[in-house]
Amino acid sequence: MNDSFKIAGEELSSRLFLGTGRFANPYIQNEAIAASGTEVLTFAIRRVNLEHPEEDAILQHLEGKTFRYLPNTSGASNAEEAIRIARLVRATGLSNWIKVEICANERTLLPDPVETLKATEQLVKEGFVVLPYTSDDPILCKRLEEAGAAAVMPGASPIGTGLGILNPYNLSIIIEEASVPIIIDAGLGSAKDVTEAMELGADGILLNTAVARAKDPVKMAAAMKFAIEAGRLSYLAGRIEKKRYATASSTTMGYFTSSFQ
Amino acid sequence: MNDSFKIAGEELSSRLFLGTGRFANPYIQNEAIAASGTEVLTFAIRRVNLEHPEEDAILQHLEGKTFRYLPNTSGASNAEEAIRIARLVRATGLSNWIKVEICANERTLLPDPVETLKATEQLVKEGFVVLPYTSDDPILCKRLEEAGAAAVMPGASPIGTGLGILNPYNLSIIIEEASVPIIIDAGLGSAKDVTEAMELGADGILLNTAVARAKDPVKMAAAMKFAIEAGRLSYLAGRIEKKRYATASSTTMGYFTSSFQ
Amino acid sequence: MNDSFKIAGEELSSRLFLGTGRFANPYIQNEAIAASGTEVLTFAIRRVNLEHPEEDAILQHLEGKTFRYLPNTSGASNAEEAIRIARLVRATGLSNWIKVEICANERTLLPDPVETLKATEQLVKEGFVVLPYTSDDPILCKRLEEAGAAAVMPGASPIGTGLGILNPYNLSIIIEEASVPIIIDAGLGSAKDVTEAMELGADGILLNTAVARAKDPVKMAAAMKFAIEAGRLSYLAGRIEKKRYATASSTTMGYFTSSFQ
Amino acid sequence: MNDSFKIAGEELSSRLFLGTGRFANPYIQNEAIAASGTEVLTFAIRRVNLEHPEEDAILQHLEGKTFRYLPNTSGASNAEEAIRIARLVRATGLSNWIKVEICANERTLLPDPVETLKATEQLVKEGFVVLPYTSDDPILCKRLEEAGAAAVMPGASPIGTGLGILNPYNLSIIIEEASVPIIIDAGLGSAKDVTEAMELGADGILLNTAVARAKDPVKMAAAMKFAIEAGRLSYLAGRIEKKRYATASSTTMGYFTSSFQ
Repeated sequence: MNDSFKIAGEELSSRLFLGTGRFANPYIQNEAIAASGTEVLTFAIRRVNLEHPEEDAILQHLEGKTFRYLPNTSGASNAEEAIRIARLVRATGLSNWIKVEICANERTLLPDPVETLKATEQLVKEGFVVLPYTSDDPILCKRLEEAGAAAVMPGASPIGTGLGILNPYNLSIIIEEASVPIIIDAGLGSAKDVTEAMELGADGILLNTAVARAKDPVKMAAAMKFAIEAGRLSYLAGRIEKKRYATASSTTMGYFTSSFQ
Repeated sequence: MNDSFKIAGEELSSRLFLGTGRFANPYIQNEAIAASGTEVLTFAIRRVNLEHPEEDAILQHLEGKTFRYLPNTSGASNAEEAIRIARLVRATGLSNWIKVEICANERTLLPDPVETLKATEQLVKEGFVVLPYTSDDPILCKRLEEAGAAAVMPGASPIGTGLGILNPYNLSIIIEEASVPIIIDAGLGSAKDVTEAMELGADGILLNTAVARAKDPVKMAAAMKFAIEAGRLSYLAGRIEKKRYATASSTTMGYFTSSFQ
Repeated sequence: MNDSFKIAGEELSSRLFLGTGRFANPYIQNEAIAASGTEVLTFAIRRVNLEHPEEDAILQHLEGKTFRYLPNTSGASNAEEAIRIARLVRATGLSNWIKVEICANERTLLPDPVETLKATEQLVKEGFVVLPYTSDDPILCKRLEEAGAAAVMPGASPIGTGLGILNPYNLSIIIEEASVPIIIDAGLGSAKDVTEAMELGADGILLNTAVARAKDPVKMAAAMKFAIEAGRLSYLAGRIEKKRYATASSTTMGYFTSSFQ
Repeated sequence: MNDSFKIAGEELSSRLFLGTGRFANPYIQNEAIAASGTEVLTFAIRRVNLEHPEEDAILQHLEGKTFRYLPNTSGASNAEEAIRIARLVRATGLSNWIKVEICANERTLLPDPVETLKATEQLVKEGFVVLPYTSDDPILCKRLEEAGAAAVMPGASPIGTGLGILNPYNLSIIIEEASVPIIIDAGLGSAKDVTEAMELGADGILLNTAVARAKDPVKMAAAMKFAIEAGRLSYLAGRIEKKRYATASSTTMGYFTSSFQ
């Protein structure tokens, strides 16, 4: 089944975006990347040698494969800082895609809605392909779309917590209202969370800690690949409605029971 | 990865058991069976022509493939009826495996704990391979195991409701305490539910309505196959712990931000 | 509002049953008993001096107040033991009410369904007023009612865990099907849990650890009293239906906005 | 117990704010107001005759009682409209408290984060006591506090849905981080929801539809009053921790069982 989707005109076959932070070592990371089937890699700019990306520990291990890079602005605490990072990255020729990630609270790392919107507006004007990380506030997500975001990335729960989808209702409203792809980002902890996100109708999901810090990251990456398929197919297949009372899978026995008596 | 498991000494590669009721027609059913990858088919006895199983609409379409048949006693409202059905089935040579399913309440179709235990005890004595469908009562599940059940099949929610896993805590306790395979049965409605069941550590799951009555049963069967893989691998990979507060996927920016100022 | 109910013909105004175990000292216990407004006290038999109940540390502090005593058989691991305890208690003249509590698993203290049913049947025959503690298995609860239980006491979650209501669906089905009072027992951890139980339509609830081990047991007892009232009134008042989409509390502004322009 | 709290220096004994929309008639409304014990009434400006408030159907029925009025700006779809409404209200001398409520989406009536922040900033500058209705985005709530909001009012779920608290985690984070009172607003449907909100540590809650459209609004108002008390006391009393495994309310039987044998 061809079930690709597009962001900013670019066709993507895999619906899994993978972050490259927190892996034990580059070898495991690359095995996990392969097992996940991802086509989009995200990373904090500071982790890449911007002057000589060809020497970067992450990027050099990926040679020979074609990935879409989605650098993020994590570490930025306001729009101005995020915009600077984005410009700097583009100047290196690495990517004109940017994940806007602006956190002012160190404990929760939750995104700042006002600064995120401001940065998105500006970067869109400057020709970037902008994918903002945001809270699951449906109106804010719509505002980001209206500001020109190529896709919107609401969080399931705070980064790195593994708490899964705290508010499936909000995500389903966001998806219903959206005209651009919705990528569920942050907080997904296991394959169940990913399957749930895809069943809600998300276009994709972004993972990092759940894979990188699993006991077996490569196996978990494979699990997540299956989870994407499972949730996506389940969404497309059209699940049964929930009912309060039972329906037998088969009708009552009729002639058969009587033949016993 | 070889990840098979055994019930009564028989090795099974697929962890999905599929019921054959409620499909729109035999063609769709067989496509769904193929897409699901199942090796174990369950059905109500009344739906099979016991005298001439080779002429049965279901069974004849399956020719050429080797399935483990798991006939069930649905329609039975007490132990005596269930035992009679089991004996009758075995007499035809179809199978000595039997899913004990005894429901006294027509509205909920929930299993009767006392009669289920009674039937299990008797059928085990008679040499059957017994897989009882039961509530998610952890003590009852243990009692069924002690009575000789080859696997125990606690329900996620009432048959056909699609309500999913109402009590994941109880299922996890059942799985912790069990020495025989635990197959989650009844009420699973979507791929998410299946992934969740497998992540809890279940050995397998049984589906019927969720596949048969999905808008696209064949696609849903494929979704469920992936969901099994996703949940199983996620369980084996060892998920991250849940935390209340965030952890950045990467450390704070350090030198990089200062170079901006 | 007179909102009493009856168990075995005895009218009760308070819907809160309180266990007397685990309090820091008898003084706090008695303050908590007073704050809770309870009329029914439950306790393990071993904690009462059966030969000289007038000298018992608990009972002597309660003098001057009229409580219905509901001794329980906790510690019993099968029907036979529970029946012995019940007979012994009745012989002292303390009470002919008995809470059947039979646990075979030390880790979960979950009730044994088969032994609980057996003990209930026998004790009813012997003229006891029997209130069995049971799992939330709806069919088992019905069986206990049919065996003559004066009220049925399904658990919300395992004793002492404070996990609250793990399966509100099952409890609501039990309540729907019941012809005797349903008292939600075990696992309730906070006022919210109690309010929820009463909103589901329970006739009453039983608490012990949630009060006795709260930081301030007397204040928590008062909280629970309010929670009972809140949940009961909410149930009787008839809550609004849940809806997916919003309805404004007031209609759109009409003339008013235009007067602004 | 004196458990009052302050907003903008004004002491409030009741933690329940009540909206005056959607009641069947003024008589029932006033009975419900009395039963709820509320001291703060909120209403859409359009529902009050601003020129002659003494003739207004709602306000004239309340004579002789002292309520704090909290007019809201519902109907406003941006900051400018909300600011106009606020100024108009203050000009009548009715109140200088204002609940900022700005919704751009008719289906969900969810608040607009950017416009809400903008209106709050401006109205604070103009000397209003501002209580903004907002989403449960923790960073946005903090921004509103920093903008000078006297209290912040995150929604539990969309207005009028009765869906209850969709994301208790977010609300608890908001409460943890706040230095001004947090009033949970919108979507609460029953006494359980209110008890839960207060147990999370909220300073108060706002209700309208849940009371006005209950089958018996006066009884539901009384339920809500108890629910506030229950949840508040439970929060103050300090609940037990949740545990995975059971603890017996009393220790094992020891000498007692042996005396049976």
